[in-house]
Amino acid sequence: MGEKATIAIQDTYDEKYSWCYGCGRLNEQGLQIKTRWEGEKTKTTYLPRPEHMAIPGFVYGGLIASIIDCHGTASAAMALHRKNGFEPGEGPEPPRFVTASLNIDYVKPTPQDVPLTLIGTIEEIHPKKWRVITELFAQDTRCARGEVIAAVMPKTFMKSEN
Amino acid sequence: MGEKATIAIQDTYDEKYSWCYGCGRLNEQGLQIKTRWEGEKTKTTYLPRPEHMAIPGFVYGGLIASIIDCHGTASAAMALHRKNGFEPGEGPEPPRFVTASLNIDYVKPTPQDVPLTLIGTIEEIHPKKWRVITELFAQDTRCARGEVIAAVMPKTFMKSEN
Repeated sequence: MGEKATIAIQDTYDEKYSWCYGCGRLNEQGLQIKTRWEGEKTKTTYLPRPEHMAIPGFVYGGLIASIIDCHGTASAAMALHRKNGFEPGEGPEPPRFVTASLNIDYVKPTPQDVPLTLIGTIEEIHPKKWRVITELFAQDTRCARGEVIAAVMPKTFMKSEN
Repeated sequence: MGEKATIAIQDTYDEKYSWCYGCGRLNEQGLQIKTRWEGEKTKTTYLPRPEHMAIPGFVYGGLIASIIDCHGTASAAMALHRKNGFEPGEGPEPPRFVTASLNIDYVKPTPQDVPLTLIGTIEEIHPKKWRVITELFAQDTRCARGEVIAAVMPKTFMKSEN
């Protein structure tokens, strides 16, 4: 752990997996979220853009869903990589996950102009399937709760790539 | 019905509710989805932008969540407006809904470069709360299924606006 624990998993994905609009470091128009370990939890911080509004002053639900989704698959990748003995930036190419299901409860309106903090709690439910519970905070207020079921990306996914 | 049934509900929202990144007609950077009646179902068609990828060739999950979310709240607004006796473009200002919860099952990878079609089925579960089941198709392939629980926007939502 130590220094390596501060590396975001998205900065260690293979280039071919780094184009996601939500979390790919090579997607220039995208959100480019970064997810890191914080002890046994995972953490992402994101400041929505001014246009990411529902009504003026509040973040729209799709942005919240997007960052919970990508935070979830990143957290699962980190957890499996750690189970395999490695922190982000260590060892072989980390595994890449896809989302099987995404459930969001919108607990409170999410204010704009403050960074959002996502805290993930991870549980293995199958060797290739992980559950990530994410709580989303705007400053100290919990505004949303999400559950992602993330599955190891099937090889057919890349095979069917154009 | 007839001619009026072809008007998108988003084009009839009051200006103050027309800034949503997913569906607001006044949000220039946003997705600006449009939802219309098709008999008793609701329909939205959206062509993802090239940058909306998960990996090259496939749409990222957050975009799918975003359009299912906004399609859901739009469908609920249309259903309540119709229950009140009006089609989009008729009668008083239509009601505006917020999302209480959003559940998505990602059934198949969603290909890029084809328009996505969302078909909504709406059920009233409480006078101020509606369930919208959305099936998302890429051409003839069903790629995702979503459930939105939409609630009439509380008055406090606008009061707490900056």
